[in-house]
Amino acid sequence: MIRCMEQLFDYVNQHSEEYIQRLREAVALDSVSADPCKRSRCVDMAHYICEWIERLEGKALVKHIGKQKFADGQVLDYPPVIFGDFCVDPHRPVVLAYCHYDVQPADIQDGWKFNPFELTEEQGKLYGRGATDDKGPLLDWLWAIEAHRQLGIPLPVNLVLCFEGMEESGSFGLDKVIEEESKGLLSRVKYVCITDNYWLTEHRPCLTYGLRGIVFFQVHIRGPQMDLHSGLFGGLIHEPLNDLIHLLHTLTDSQGNILIPKVMDSVAPVTKEEESIYERILFDTEQLRKEAGQVSQLRESDKVKVLMNRWRFPSLSFHGIQGAFSGQGEKTVIPCAVTGKFSIRLVPHQQPQEIAHHVEQFLKQQFDQFHSGNELQVEWRGASPWLGDYHNSNFTAARLAFKKVYQVEPDLTREGGSIPITNTFQEYLGGEICLIPLGSPDDGAHSQNEKMNKHNYIEGIKVIIAYMDELAKQISYQY
Amino acid sequence: MIRCMEQLFDYVNQHSEEYIQRLREAVALDSVSADPCKRSRCVDMAHYICEWIERLEGKALVKHIGKQKFADGQVLDYPPVIFGDFCVDPHRPVVLAYCHYDVQPADIQDGWKFNPFELTEEQGKLYGRGATDDKGPLLDWLWAIEAHRQLGIPLPVNLVLCFEGMEESGSFGLDKVIEEESKGLLSRVKYVCITDNYWLTEHRPCLTYGLRGIVFFQVHIRGPQMDLHSGLFGGLIHEPLNDLIHLLHTLTDSQGNILIPKVMDSVAPVTKEEESIYERILFDTEQLRKEAGQVSQLRESDKVKVLMNRWRFPSLSFHGIQGAFSGQGEKTVIPCAVTGKFSIRLVPHQQPQEIAHHVEQFLKQQFDQFHSGNELQVEWRGASPWLGDYHNSNFTAARLAFKKVYQVEPDLTREGGSIPITNTFQEYLGGEICLIPLGSPDDGAHSQNEKMNKHNYIEGIKVIIAYMDELAKQISYQY
Repeated sequence: MIRCMEQLFDYVNQHSEEYIQRLREAVALDSVSADPCKRSRCVDMAHYICEWIERLEGKALVKHIGKQKFADGQVLDYPPVIFGDFCVDPHRPVVLAYCHYDVQPADIQDGWKFNPFELTEEQGKLYGRGATDDKGPLLDWLWAIEAHRQLGIPLPVNLVLCFEGMEESGSFGLDKVIEEESKGLLSRVKYVCITDNYWLTEHRPCLTYGLRGIVFFQVHIRGPQMDLHSGLFGGLIHEPLNDLIHLLHTLTDSQGNILIPKVMDSVAPVTKEEESIYERILFDTEQLRKEAGQVSQLRESDKVKVLMNRWRFPSLSFHGIQGAFSGQGEKTVIPCAVTGKFSIRLVPHQQPQEIAHHVEQFLKQQFDQFHSGNELQVEWRGASPWLGDYHNSNFTAARLAFKKVYQVEPDLTREGGSIPITNTFQEYLGGEICLIPLGSPDDGAHSQNEKMNKHNYIEGIKVIIAYMDELAKQISYQY
Repeated sequence: MIRCMEQLFDYVNQHSEEYIQRLREAVALDSVSADPCKRSRCVDMAHYICEWIERLEGKALVKHIGKQKFADGQVLDYPPVIFGDFCVDPHRPVVLAYCHYDVQPADIQDGWKFNPFELTEEQGKLYGRGATDDKGPLLDWLWAIEAHRQLGIPLPVNLVLCFEGMEESGSFGLDKVIEEESKGLLSRVKYVCITDNYWLTEHRPCLTYGLRGIVFFQVHIRGPQMDLHSGLFGGLIHEPLNDLIHLLHTLTDSQGNILIPKVMDSVAPVTKEEESIYERILFDTEQLRKEAGQVSQLRESDKVKVLMNRWRFPSLSFHGIQGAFSGQGEKTVIPCAVTGKFSIRLVPHQQPQEIAHHVEQFLKQQFDQFHSGNELQVEWRGASPWLGDYHNSNFTAARLAFKKVYQVEPDLTREGGSIPITNTFQEYLGGEICLIPLGSPDDGAHSQNEKMNKHNYIEGIKVIIAYMDELAKQISYQY
């Protein structure tokens, strides 16, 4: 087995130019899912991947998810979900690898150094839209399989690739496809590996075992039937925006701490083991301060506290107000109906339904005390937090794979945001999910000058090769 | 003298069809000052008035106020200020009559019953843009002079008409013209009569002796250099919008009462005489509730309290927030810089400078307690309140005029809003200013289906005739 690894790694080292060339082809297929004009390019990209899967002797399965009606009236097929079936042993569990082949919009006029759809190498960096999000990682999976094929080494696990084409547009249709296939192609999936996020620092790889959830609130307060003039009505009526400001301020203190009763009660306590994980993580709070655009001070300066605030404690952010005056200059209007928007990031064991209930109840209690005669309506939408078990076989395999390729123990990290597909897989497939980031935090996903380091791209293939190998060992230990 | 009045009133009664026909011509000149495409129509309207003034043997003086650059790059002359000089006796004081000849935009597609620029009579109402705001009242002045001319009766006072063409666009340039002419044409002005507001109820005329002032505040809070993602930074930084909400809520209580120290200290106390004025005013709070679009409840239901809250007590209204998310739907953004907008309506003896100072100091004190590390900047712009003396000659003349025409004592009212030209005249000309409303509160100035009641339009001429007559008597009593 060690012999095989060496062969495979050697093969990867010898083919880096081909790998870059093929990434150039993939980036040139400007598969922007949000843009109806680029929809045919998404379809081209899907074909490109299917042909490749078939060249690798996998079965390509194209799942169509219906038609999309755009604002301009156009009706077009959604980009399909593609499965690549590389299963050989029906008696063993299946590993599902998730990536997406669509990309964010990009235009050289937005401030790109190079044409965003023409991969450009400069000082070890591969610039191009989708290079790191998520075409580089997606190709890493294909290259890992190809290396096995070229060397005549069988894949060590039953592998199903799951490549989505609507991730940048809310992953529309993915949950339906996953639900359908949970009784078919995906019925034996026991391990899910998501390669669509980033290391915490550029200097050390990490594995992501937790995500915060979210409840997004829209608090509507309605008063008069039309906007009024503050000269005529100022002082006479209970103004909806006065209600809203007094309502919103009860949710937090001036430091941003959440004051809503019961909301903090279900937060899982910090364990000793957890604390020790945070202490060894490589992370520079000063760097973070710079990323926030020279923000003058963080609420906490201690590394562990900063990371815990980002990952494992809830936070409340106000996003804005709809319906009030938001333009430049002056307008002496009393807005007749306003909507306050804020969200709470959730952590284990907070569930959206429960938190929304507490918030709604509190808002209504406070609002009733105003006796303003205005109307309150609270609307919310939520996603659960996710927490994986970093002791399980999947994480162990991933951890050993990073160690083999980078000679370093990866940090165990979480994310402050949500990655909704994780919940989709957890809900419909269960099993062990692991997020294996391959890109660097400075890759600029969604931003101008997106890039993937050549090193990360090539070593990513080895990480995947080693991961499949280690996971096969973990599986056989269990049997 | 009584003989003359009878003759003049009879003449007016006999010419109502001509009056309406000429108002139709004036309305057809769609002099929308805000619209560059309509700028030539403002100029046409100015010519129309100047020719009329000259036909009436007045001296027309056209004051140009420079060139306006529009957003689309066009550069056009501002509509001029027109003076009509009808002074004959250099030894007696001058009465200045103010109106404006520009109008608000209007489009039949906004929900007008008739073409807004084609005066249409229906059930005693004259529908058309500018009918009541302010072409009807403007023409009333010209008709009052014309009646004298036709009957060979000399004008009883030295009269100067001052007709502005930019009132609906912030009265740009007027103050400069008034300042210039304060040493020339307007040097002997002792009485100013503004006919550009409305009765408090449609059933009884009123005279307006007070206006609230205003200080408009923009509170800027700046944090990071760019908007941030709440998944990445929620819980880590002091969010500017959290600061702003906590800052704004300290300004009022949940009932809308102002909590800023010292701001209420300079409010003039209510006198017994004042209270008695309020008690006799004809006003229906239920009607007001309907005007506010079926607002479920007013802060006060008692007539006197409602009117005092509108006219003689300050009020604080929040208008909105700039820089935060104000669109539909969800956006998990942490805005990097936000501006809270609110204004305080001022009453005697509150001065903008003083109130702004108290507010700024209070905001800074509160903000310093947050220790957020964000930056606070407070910007303000203000206009003084105005209070006339309803015992003076000007008001006495106006009061007697209404009594003569309507056989009823007019109510003494104030306005909750500001009419900045009042301060302009007070500042540059001094003397006695009186606001004589001729229109009805349901005229719909600035709104769809603007109208002036035929009755108000025709009787308005008589009010002006009687006003000049009574003012002449008041003046001669003084000499």
